[in-house]
Amino acid sequence: MTTNQLMIDTALASWRQAVAQASETFNLLTDDQFQREVAPGKNRVLYLLGHLTAVNDAMLTILGLGDRLHPELDAMFIKNPDKVIKELPTAANLKKYWAEVNQNVLHKMEALSPREWLQRHATMTDEDLAKNPTRNRLNILLSRARHVSYHRGQVAVARN
Amino acid sequence: MTTNQLMIDTALASWRQAVAQASETFNLLTDDQFQREVAPGKNRVLYLLGHLTAVNDAMLTILGLGDRLHPELDAMFIKNPDKVIKELPTAANLKKYWAEVNQNVLHKMEALSPREWLQRHATMTDEDLAKNPTRNRLNILLSRARHVSYHRGQVAVARN
Repeated sequence: MTTNQLMIDTALASWRQAVAQASETFNLLTDDQFQREVAPGKNRVLYLLGHLTAVNDAMLTILGLGDRLHPELDAMFIKNPDKVIKELPTAANLKKYWAEVNQNVLHKMEALSPREWLQRHATMTDEDLAKNPTRNRLNILLSRARHVSYHRGQVAVARN
Repeated sequence: MTTNQLMIDTALASWRQAVAQASETFNLLTDDQFQREVAPGKNRVLYLLGHLTAVNDAMLTILGLGDRLHPELDAMFIKNPDKVIKELPTAANLKKYWAEVNQNVLHKMEALSPREWLQRHATMTDEDLAKNPTRNRLNILLSRARHVSYHRGQVAVARN
């Protein structure tokens, strides 16, 4: 294996771990716990599951990897804060979307070569990348992994 | 710049961002807010600042990069849960340690070559690494970055 490929494999292993840990946290929750706010007046756990699903699904767009599975989640879980949109998918359905989205995103990302990981992502211009070459696809993978962990931390304290 | 070095630079940029975001969150807090629990019966914000400082300082040991600045924090913030050790540093002192520790760790990490990032870390044997070569120093950097973001998420909801 090349050094380049090993670095990408290490980053993908970290991503898999972030997602697996979040899945484990969500799978421990009862339906009642999904309705709880992570702190008074803050997002409900259900909203965070939808939010993470929508953001991970949107990685396909920003990485230029094809069509998303659930673009309809953006209005509910990204464009609007919690409690604005009243009709949301059930926790059971969101858990299904979460699993499907992550499987799909991982599958597409595993097909990228080391060189492709260092190319710019869809929201950057070639000029932007020339100025700061670390703003590449790999940067998106690492920041989205931290985003998963950020919200998992909140869900973890909301359990009891 | 080599492709290898650009990958490492991208990972270090993600680390810097995780630390900078956490610093920003901690710097917004009043002394009173440092005494709050992130959820009823959970860790206080002060404990999380100490915990992140101790864990980041300990990266020097696990990465084999020399002596730590604040090994005395482990008993207070890693080996014991919150509220067991009564005498803790003030928030002002912990914020100072946090800045010093992160500066020191970053400085040491910036000196590692891409090849050195792929070597095993101190808690692994050569045999372990042969079985799973992604369990290298870079893996530690990525998982510690997620660890910072995990607890920052908790501090962020404890503010109001």
